[in-house]
Amino acid sequence: MATEATTGPSPINKTAHPFTRGALEDLLSRRFFYAPAFEIYGGVAGLYDYGPPGSALHANILHEWRKHFIIEESMLELDTTIMTPSPVFETSGHVARFADWMVKDTKTGDVLRADHLVEGVLEARLKGDKEARGVAATEEAEVDPKKKKKKAVKTTAVKLDDVVVQEYETVLNQIDNYTGPQLGELIQKFNIVNPDTGNPVDEPVQFNLMFDSSIGPTGKIKGYLRPETAQGHFLNFQRLLAFNNGQIPFASAQIGRSFRNEISPRAGLLRVREFTMSEIEHYVDPLDKSHSRFPEVKDLKLRFLAKDVQAAGRSEISEITVGEAVASKMVDNETLGYFLARIYLFLSKIGVDHDRLRFRQHMANEMAHYASDCWDAEIETSYGWIECVGCADRSAYDLTVHSKATGKPLVARQNLAEPIVEEKETPEFNLKLWGKTFKGDGDRVKAIVNGLGEDGLVKLRDDLSKGPVEVSDANGDKFTITPEMVKIEKKTTKISIREFTPNVIEPSFGIGRIMYSLLEHVYWARESDAARGVLSLPPMVAPTKCLIVPISNQEVFQPLIKDISSKLRAAGVYARVDDSGASIGKRYARNDELGTPYGCTLDFASVQNGTMTLRERDTTDQLIGKVDEVVEVVKDLVFGQLDWEGACKKLPKYTGVQDV
Amino acid sequence: MATEATTGPSPINKTAHPFTRGALEDLLSRRFFYAPAFEIYGGVAGLYDYGPPGSALHANILHEWRKHFIIEESMLELDTTIMTPSPVFETSGHVARFADWMVKDTKTGDVLRADHLVEGVLEARLKGDKEARGVAATEEAEVDPKKKKKKAVKTTAVKLDDVVVQEYETVLNQIDNYTGPQLGELIQKFNIVNPDTGNPVDEPVQFNLMFDSSIGPTGKIKGYLRPETAQGHFLNFQRLLAFNNGQIPFASAQIGRSFRNEISPRAGLLRVREFTMSEIEHYVDPLDKSHSRFPEVKDLKLRFLAKDVQAAGRSEISEITVGEAVASKMVDNETLGYFLARIYLFLSKIGVDHDRLRFRQHMANEMAHYASDCWDAEIETSYGWIECVGCADRSAYDLTVHSKATGKPLVARQNLAEPIVEEKETPEFNLKLWGKTFKGDGDRVKAIVNGLGEDGLVKLRDDLSKGPVEVSDANGDKFTITPEMVKIEKKTTKISIREFTPNVIEPSFGIGRIMYSLLEHVYWARESDAARGVLSLPPMVAPTKCLIVPISNQEVFQPLIKDISSKLRAAGVYARVDDSGASIGKRYARNDELGTPYGCTLDFASVQNGTMTLRERDTTDQLIGKVDEVVEVVKDLVFGQLDWEGACKKLPKYTGVQDV
Repeated sequence: MATEATTGPSPINKTAHPFTRGALEDLLSRRFFYAPAFEIYGGVAGLYDYGPPGSALHANILHEWRKHFIIEESMLELDTTIMTPSPVFETSGHVARFADWMVKDTKTGDVLRADHLVEGVLEARLKGDKEARGVAATEEAEVDPKKKKKKAVKTTAVKLDDVVVQEYETVLNQIDNYTGPQLGELIQKFNIVNPDTGNPVDEPVQFNLMFDSSIGPTGKIKGYLRPETAQGHFLNFQRLLAFNNGQIPFASAQIGRSFRNEISPRAGLLRVREFTMSEIEHYVDPLDKSHSRFPEVKDLKLRFLAKDVQAAGRSEISEITVGEAVASKMVDNETLGYFLARIYLFLSKIGVDHDRLRFRQHMANEMAHYASDCWDAEIETSYGWIECVGCADRSAYDLTVHSKATGKPLVARQNLAEPIVEEKETPEFNLKLWGKTFKGDGDRVKAIVNGLGEDGLVKLRDDLSKGPVEVSDANGDKFTITPEMVKIEKKTTKISIREFTPNVIEPSFGIGRIMYSLLEHVYWARESDAARGVLSLPPMVAPTKCLIVPISNQEVFQPLIKDISSKLRAAGVYARVDDSGASIGKRYARNDELGTPYGCTLDFASVQNGTMTLRERDTTDQLIGKVDEVVEVVKDLVFGQLDWEGACKKLPKYTGVQDV
Repeated sequence: MATEATTGPSPINKTAHPFTRGALEDLLSRRFFYAPAFEIYGGVAGLYDYGPPGSALHANILHEWRKHFIIEESMLELDTTIMTPSPVFETSGHVARFADWMVKDTKTGDVLRADHLVEGVLEARLKGDKEARGVAATEEAEVDPKKKKKKAVKTTAVKLDDVVVQEYETVLNQIDNYTGPQLGELIQKFNIVNPDTGNPVDEPVQFNLMFDSSIGPTGKIKGYLRPETAQGHFLNFQRLLAFNNGQIPFASAQIGRSFRNEISPRAGLLRVREFTMSEIEHYVDPLDKSHSRFPEVKDLKLRFLAKDVQAAGRSEISEITVGEAVASKMVDNETLGYFLARIYLFLSKIGVDHDRLRFRQHMANEMAHYASDCWDAEIETSYGWIECVGCADRSAYDLTVHSKATGKPLVARQNLAEPIVEEKETPEFNLKLWGKTFKGDGDRVKAIVNGLGEDGLVKLRDDLSKGPVEVSDANGDKFTITPEMVKIEKKTTKISIREFTPNVIEPSFGIGRIMYSLLEHVYWARESDAARGVLSLPPMVAPTKCLIVPISNQEVFQPLIKDISSKLRAAGVYARVDDSGASIGKRYARNDELGTPYGCTLDFASVQNGTMTLRERDTTDQLIGKVDEVVEVVKDLVFGQLDWEGACKKLPKYTGVQDV
C-alpha cells in the first residue's frame, strides 16, 4: 500500500506540471467543492451549489473578511432584504441603466453578450495570427482542450496585417470602455458573426440584468432582487449615523446574496446569476477624505494599472507605494488608497498570489458619471484578469438621490467652532394645512421648496403673490402650493451647525470569484504523478484543518479517535475522521485534494504508547509526539502561532514506515 | 450624574413591571435591532432590515446553531441557490400546493388570509364575551393599546351562549386543521365579515406563496425563489452520499435565505416575506430509525401537545421523557425523538425560557400525506404560541419524486451479509439505439421501464411482440419504444447489495422567529423605572460582549482604551468602546438595552494604577481588579468557564462611587 515516498521528506516542486484548468475542475467536481445547481434536472447556466468543502472554504473566507474589515475597524454590520420594491432602483438608476448590451443571431434567435462576442472573436483571430506566424500559444496548450472547446471561439491559423493586429489589441485593451452603439460599429467594421452558426447578428440592444418579481397578492407592487447590497446601506443611513452617536467618518458593512440575470453566463464561478458579496460603505466628510490609519499602509507597494495607460491601449503596471499613488493624485484620496491597501492585505492573507494581483483603474466610459475615482482589484486566472473587488469613490450621489426622491434628509451634522451668520430667504410652512393637503407627500414637497435656492425662493414668493403655484420633483410628480401654505421671508440666521451629505467610498467584494481565483493559485500536482492534485490552502481558510486517520478501521482505535476529536474540538480546531476502508495513502491523497493542511495518524503504537504522527500536506513530512503535544502543535499551526519549520523544532521527525 | 444605585448591589426583580410589547418594540427600533426595510420609501409589509445589534444577535444564534448541530455531529454543510427553475417545484408539489387560502372583501377588493380572518374574529368575540361576563382579560391590559389596535379585531362586550363559547374554542384549537372550503363554511356559519369595513367576503381561493421570476434573456425559463432550502439538499443527495463514502445514516445542513410571498404579513418578525432558515436533512435506513446517540437524551423531559388531544379541541401538555414518548409511539421513532431533544437543548442554551416552549404534533390535515410524523417546537410570546422549528419524518417522499421525475437514482446501497437469489424479468436495453432515439430523455424512459414491475414487464414483452409500444411517465410525457430497443427475459440474479431510498428526518428552523421570541423572553425593566429596559441575553449570543467605557472622553484615556481593546480582541471577546459625551449612567443604560452583559469602566485611578471595574448587566454589581485580571475574568465569563458568582470570588467588590 505504499503510495507516498517513505525515505525522507519529499522535495516540493509546485511547478513540476503545468497548470491545467481541466484537472482542477475535475478535482473540484469530484470532491464536491461545487456543482451545477439542479444538475439532475439538467442544470441552469450560471447557478451553482457549494458542497461541504466549498461551503466551508466560502464560510472561512467570509469569517476572515469579517475579522479583517468589520471587527478590526468596528464597522456597523447590516443585514438587509434581497427583495426590493421598484422605486428604490428607479432612484438609484438601476431600472434605467443596469443593463448589458446583447445581440441576437439573425437566424436562430440565440442571444449573445455584445462585448463578449467582440472580445471572443478578436482574441481568436489574434491567436490564429500567432499560429500562422509560428508563435506557440503556450498558455493555450496547457488548458484541457475538451473544456476549452465549449467556451472559446474556434481558432483558424490566418495571418493578419501588423496594423490589424495593433488595432485588435487596442480594442481588446479597452473592451470595457465601449457603449452599445460603439460595439455595434465594431461588429460591422470587423465583420463579426455568431461563431457558433456563422450567421450575422442584430444591432446591440439593452437587457436589464435585474430579476423581477411581484410582491403581495395584488400583483401591483413590482419588486426586484437586488443586484448589489449597497442600496440597503444607503436607505438606513440616518439610523446608522444615530447608532454611531452622530459621528463621521464611519462604515457600514454587509455580507449577502445578490442576483444578476446574466445574458449568457460562462466561465464557471466567475460569471454567475446568484452570488455572495460583501460590501463596505465608508461615509466621509467631502471636505476631508484623509484616513487616520493611512500612515499604517502608506509604504505598501501595489501594482497599479492606471486609466491613461489603458486609454492609450497599453497595459503596463506601475509598482509604487500607496503613499506615492495618493500623493501624485493617481489615486484620488487617502481613504480610497487606504482601502486599496487593506484589500491587498486581505487577499494576500487568504492565499492569493500577490504577483497575480493588480489594481486597474476604471476608464472614463466605464465609470459612473458621479464617481470621482474607481479601481478594481483584478486577479489573474486561466480566464485572464478577473475583477474580484471594486473600490469606488461614489461621491454624494447615492445619499443625494434617495433623499431627493423621498424628501427625507440623509445628512450628517458638524458643530462649527465659529458660527456663521447669514441672511437668507427662508420658507415658513403652515404645517397643519400642509399636512392636510399633501398627507404622506408632505416631506417630499417640503424638500422641493427647500431645494429651490435663494433665487428660486424669491421667484416662488413672487408667483405665490399672484395665486397658487405648481411645483414638481425630479420624477415629474406635480403639486399645487397655495399662498396660505407657505410664507417666504428674508431672515438672519446664525448657523452653528454645518449640515452636509457625506461622500461614500465603496469597497465591494465578489466572494465566489475570489474563491475560484484562489483555488487556481493554490492548485498543483505532485511531481511523481500529475493526477495527484494538492490544494495548498492556508490553514486559516482550509475547509478542514486536520484529518484524523487510523491505520485501519478496527474497533480498537475508536476510543482514541473519540479522545483526539474532542481535544481538537476543545482547541477550536475543525477536524474530520476518515476511518473508511481505503489505504492510508489513498486517504492522504483525498485530503490533499480537499486542502486539509494536517493529518494525525494512529497506529497500534498509538494505542499502546499514546503517540501519534503529524503529517504536513505540502511536504508530506511527518513528525511524532504524545497525543497532547501534537494537539498543542496543531492548534498553534492552525491559529498562525507556529509555522511548519517551528513545528519541526518542537517534535521529532517520524522515521517509521507508518505513512504508506 | 447618579442614575444607578451606589449603595450595594441592586436586587434584581425581573417581574416588577408587566411585559408590554410596545416598550420592547420601541427599544428594538431605537437601538436599531431591526427596522422596516425601505422605511424612507414608506416600507413594504413583511420585509425588515437588521441593524448592527440585530445582525450580530442573528449571526451569533447561527454560530451556536452551527456548533450545536453541524460541528457536533459532523453534518455535511451545503450552500445551494435560492433561484430555482420551475420543474423542481413542480415535482416537489410546491407549484400545485404551496398556497394559502385568501378571501376578498366583496366591495373594496382588500385581500385577507382566510384562517387569520376566522381566528381574529372568533378571538375578538370570545374577548367581548369575557368582558360582558366581567372577567378581566388580564393579558390584554399588559399590551400597549396603541400597538394592539392596529393588529387585532376590535372587541365589543357581547355575552355569548355557553354552547357558542365552547364551539368557538373548539374551532380555534384546530384552526390549522381546516381546508379552504371548510374555512368558507365557517365564515358563512358564523357570519364573519371583514372587520375593517364590515363588508362580506368572497369564497376562499388559493394563492401560491412562491415569488416567481424568469431566468435568462429569453423569458422562457420560469424560476421561483425557494420557500425552503430543503430541495437543494435532496437534489444533491447522490453527491453528498459519495462525499460521505457511501455511508448511511448522515445529515446535510444548510443555513440560507428563503422567501414566501405572504398574503398579509403581520406580527413583525414572526411573519415575513424573506427570512433566514437553517435546515437539516437526516438520511436514515427506513428499516432502522434508531439513533446511536439516543441514550444521551432519552431521560430529558419535554412538554408535548399530542395530536389526539388537539383533535378533541383541547390543549393539555404531557411532560414526559423523550424515552417514554418514543416507547409509547407518541413520537414515531428514535431519530425524530433525538432531534426534538437536541432542538430543546439548543433553544434553552441560547436563552429561550423552557417553561414557554412546547412541542406540538401536527394533526391529520396539517401534515403532508407522505409524512409519518411531524412536531413543531412552539415558543410562547405576546402573539400566542409561535411555530419556530418544525421537525418532520418525511419518509422517502422527496428522494422518490425527484428520482422519478429525472430518471436519476437517489438511493443508498448496503452490502448484504447473505446474498439473495432471485429469478425475475429483466429488461436489456440496446443502449446505442436507445441513446440515439431518446437523447437527453434516455434515463427517464429507462426509469419508466424499470419501474413497471414483474407484471408490467411481462405485458410489455407481449405488447412489443406485436410492434412499437407507447409508454408515459407521471407528467404525462409519452415515448414510443420499438421491439429492437429492449429485450425482456427472465433471469436469475444473485443480489448481494440491497438498494434502498433513505427516509428523511427534517428539523427546520426559522431563525428570525426564534430571535424575536428570545427577545420577548429576555426583556424586562428595572424596578426603579419602567422605561429602563434590559435585555438579559446570554453572553454567548449577546451582540457585544463587553462595553469599554471611560469616565469621560478626555484624551488621557485613549492609550488605555487601545490597550484594553486589543487585549480583549486577542482573547476573542467582541468589545465596543463608548467614549461619547453622555453620562456614565446613560451609557450603561444604553448598553443594558443592547444586552451587553459586561462593562469595563476606566477612571483616573485606572490611568494611575492600571485598575478597572467590571460591571454585570443584570445585577449592576461592580468588581475591581488590575486590567489583565479583569480581561481574564471577562474572557472566562464570555466563554462560559465562569459565572458571575464565580467572578465575585475572583475579584473584590468595588465600593467606590465610580458607577454613578
